[in-house]
Amino acid sequence: MDLNLDVGESFGVYTLGNDDALLPYVTSANIACGFHGGDPQIMARTVGLVKAHSVAIGAHPGYPDLAGFGRRIMRMSEHEIENMLLYQLGALGAFVRAQGVALRHVKPHGALYNFAAQDMPTARAIARAVTRFDSRLILVGQANSRLVDAAREFGLACAREGFIDRAYRSDGSLLPRTEIGAMVSSPARAVQVAMQLVRDQTVRAMDGTLLKLDVDTLCIHGDAPYAMDTARAVNEALRAGGVTLMPML
Amino acid sequence: MDLNLDVGESFGVYTLGNDDALLPYVTSANIACGFHGGDPQIMARTVGLVKAHSVAIGAHPGYPDLAGFGRRIMRMSEHEIENMLLYQLGALGAFVRAQGVALRHVKPHGALYNFAAQDMPTARAIARAVTRFDSRLILVGQANSRLVDAAREFGLACAREGFIDRAYRSDGSLLPRTEIGAMVSSPARAVQVAMQLVRDQTVRAMDGTLLKLDVDTLCIHGDAPYAMDTARAVNEALRAGGVTLMPML
Amino acid sequence: MDLNLDVGESFGVYTLGNDDALLPYVTSANIACGFHGGDPQIMARTVGLVKAHSVAIGAHPGYPDLAGFGRRIMRMSEHEIENMLLYQLGALGAFVRAQGVALRHVKPHGALYNFAAQDMPTARAIARAVTRFDSRLILVGQANSRLVDAAREFGLACAREGFIDRAYRSDGSLLPRTEIGAMVSSPARAVQVAMQLVRDQTVRAMDGTLLKLDVDTLCIHGDAPYAMDTARAVNEALRAGGVTLMPML
Amino acid sequence: MDLNLDVGESFGVYTLGNDDALLPYVTSANIACGFHGGDPQIMARTVGLVKAHSVAIGAHPGYPDLAGFGRRIMRMSEHEIENMLLYQLGALGAFVRAQGVALRHVKPHGALYNFAAQDMPTARAIARAVTRFDSRLILVGQANSRLVDAAREFGLACAREGFIDRAYRSDGSLLPRTEIGAMVSSPARAVQVAMQLVRDQTVRAMDGTLLKLDVDTLCIHGDAPYAMDTARAVNEALRAGGVTLMPML
Repeated sequence: MDLNLDVGESFGVYTLGNDDALLPYVTSANIACGFHGGDPQIMARTVGLVKAHSVAIGAHPGYPDLAGFGRRIMRMSEHEIENMLLYQLGALGAFVRAQGVALRHVKPHGALYNFAAQDMPTARAIARAVTRFDSRLILVGQANSRLVDAAREFGLACAREGFIDRAYRSDGSLLPRTEIGAMVSSPARAVQVAMQLVRDQTVRAMDGTLLKLDVDTLCIHGDAPYAMDTARAVNEALRAGGVTLMPML
Repeated sequence: MDLNLDVGESFGVYTLGNDDALLPYVTSANIACGFHGGDPQIMARTVGLVKAHSVAIGAHPGYPDLAGFGRRIMRMSEHEIENMLLYQLGALGAFVRAQGVALRHVKPHGALYNFAAQDMPTARAIARAVTRFDSRLILVGQANSRLVDAAREFGLACAREGFIDRAYRSDGSLLPRTEIGAMVSSPARAVQVAMQLVRDQTVRAMDGTLLKLDVDTLCIHGDAPYAMDTARAVNEALRAGGVTLMPML
Repeated sequence: MDLNLDVGESFGVYTLGNDDALLPYVTSANIACGFHGGDPQIMARTVGLVKAHSVAIGAHPGYPDLAGFGRRIMRMSEHEIENMLLYQLGALGAFVRAQGVALRHVKPHGALYNFAAQDMPTARAIARAVTRFDSRLILVGQANSRLVDAAREFGLACAREGFIDRAYRSDGSLLPRTEIGAMVSSPARAVQVAMQLVRDQTVRAMDGTLLKLDVDTLCIHGDAPYAMDTARAVNEALRAGGVTLMPML
Repeated sequence: MDLNLDVGESFGVYTLGNDDALLPYVTSANIACGFHGGDPQIMARTVGLVKAHSVAIGAHPGYPDLAGFGRRIMRMSEHEIENMLLYQLGALGAFVRAQGVALRHVKPHGALYNFAAQDMPTARAIARAVTRFDSRLILVGQANSRLVDAAREFGLACAREGFIDRAYRSDGSLLPRTEIGAMVSSPARAVQVAMQLVRDQTVRAMDGTLLKLDVDTLCIHGDAPYAMDTARAVNEALRAGGVTLMPML
């Protein structure tokens, strides 16, 4: 099982997250590419940091909306999405290459991730951009989403992501962050969800429905309350339970 | 001799220059990377256009200042400049790679180009970024400038650029665009300057001084009045004079 | 009847439209406020230009999306829309005040205008911002739209806008610009539509339906082909037909 | 004596400073206007916060450089600076007006403040913008700077600012933030400098020189280490010393 973390989402003088403290507990890191967060300075520093922690490096591209942190859907054409992805993948790729490491996966951010989970044209535009940039990259999408379908359609390796601190609706989608109860901030609950996802491939939706969910990677949110405690607890519980933590394949 | 042209400097709905009409007359094209001009859509389209014209592809990175079109000096640290270059080179590189072509050279834009001509730390930051991104790239700098010195220091291939439609001061620098008389808009005069640069390696400064100037590439300005006439006239005159036009080596 | 024109949509070195040539034919001008187009320099210059033509001055606020020219819907909360409007109204207001003239109306731009035509929360957020900024301003909205409803709800003076060069769907909405046939570029046809809107308060939809449409202002598109011919022809035809052209009340 | 604080410099999801905790200790607040920091949401919230604390409201305009937090000099023309100021003053003014309060002063931010301290054309462009926007506003500039000279030239009320946590050079300028020792982070030392500025109108430069400095307002830095302790200590020491704290006149 892989644990992934969004990193490098600071911007200029603004600091977000606690990358250095959380990286020891994950096996993959998704680095922001300057559109929803991150800037050239932050990207250079973050690639170095992730490399130092021997964590697998991925790109975390988003909508061009810093003021909204990429959490607002923007209605873009497929061409616009595809080119926006290529731009961000290339930009991050330069820092990765300059530090002698390699890009391993791509995980879209925020509203782009969520919209691509439901909208096949958006999902395909993302998969096409990844394929054109480097067809060996792994595309990370929400388990059971259109993005996973699109990755397969394009023959890309794909990692299905599960969430341990977000409320699932009965259709398998996430309750939006703007809704009450969207975030579950108890480390104990996160550990329980993680164990159930890994052992039984199921998750309990808000209305009690038991959802079948095959996942390859679990998302650790760095900006959540108790992020540190959750990351450590999940990491330790999984290892104690005999689960091998390693980057997605 | 190489003739180079800045292209892809449009943005969103805004069109600048006349790339399609001018590309037949040049051998290298410098594509804007989204900071002073250009955006992911424009970059994708421009790489395709330059490829279709079989013209050598270069990156044209600038300051992050769309409102000022990269023509206002921003006091950035060496690290900021280096990372800003890496970001832009990578971004353009993605479009180039996706279309199965290769990046051949890098020519900084506007105020960055001019500041790097005089300021060794800035010149070195640019050369370092190019070296780290791809040490086989050719760095284009103004003839006799610090940028050329820095390219050599870093062991980069270097192309020295001459201007056929700009007024030279007696110290070899260009009269800034904001000054009266900075731009020479007569095609006939441009042809004469071009021939003298190619045959005698000299150019006449504004005060009459004859400057020695070894150049490998001549800049064709696409946004100048008579740009088309100038491009065609210089291209034809050089070829008629037995000069082989080809991309920089 | 009022004829209104979007102006000041250039940005930095990029020129859009032909404001100076078209202003003689209109009675109201909507000035971009720096989010979808325009910048402080352009705004200062445009206010001066509109003032020189003795045309009524309005604000033309849009989504914060220069790359998409404000033509892409962004899902923003009501608070975000309200504050985004206040910001832009204030910014333009400073240039208007500094030149001793007054703001008279507000017309949202592009996707914001279209989304507000259908979405009551967005329409209300706009009306609330206008009311809070200056309750004497006239809010311009598409005839029969939610924006007109919202303006009335807030007790704002309201001008209902009709289009003479856009295809209407049978529900009274406009065919999006991305669709074939969305723009009607014949001046003769524009004149005919204008006369029918003014005399009969009707417009013919694409499918032949005759729509009832009370309008107070007609939109002249400055970026359309034949914009000049259309503006002049409509202006002359209306006046020849005995219609008094004057700013909205 | 006035104590002033820069506020509202957060952006989107990014938080900077501790406005709510520090406002009780100051008498004037300078609100960022969206160029170097701040956004429409933050500005709306910050105006409300400052109003709730009954602190005098000022504008804090900066260079259009969010990535550099307005701390990098950009070479802009006088017209560009003047219009950039008008834009920001107007934008903030809308939020102030919408909440029924009034703008009282203007203090440029970061590199713009520092450059205007030495460069008369920049200082004049700022003073001209303030005059054109509202000639009753107070312009805040570093004591003994060109900005103070320009304010007087334009007949503006002017407040001369002193720094209690920055190192002064013997010519009265501040050691740049990028230099070692630029920031003095001891509350005790800040109190001592404040008392000396208020009682003797002098400050000790780094090389020991005693500088004469008449000041009307002292700057409290919200992003400094010990910002809270410093603000409280200075506020209490001045009041204990019989100094009346009140907004600049």
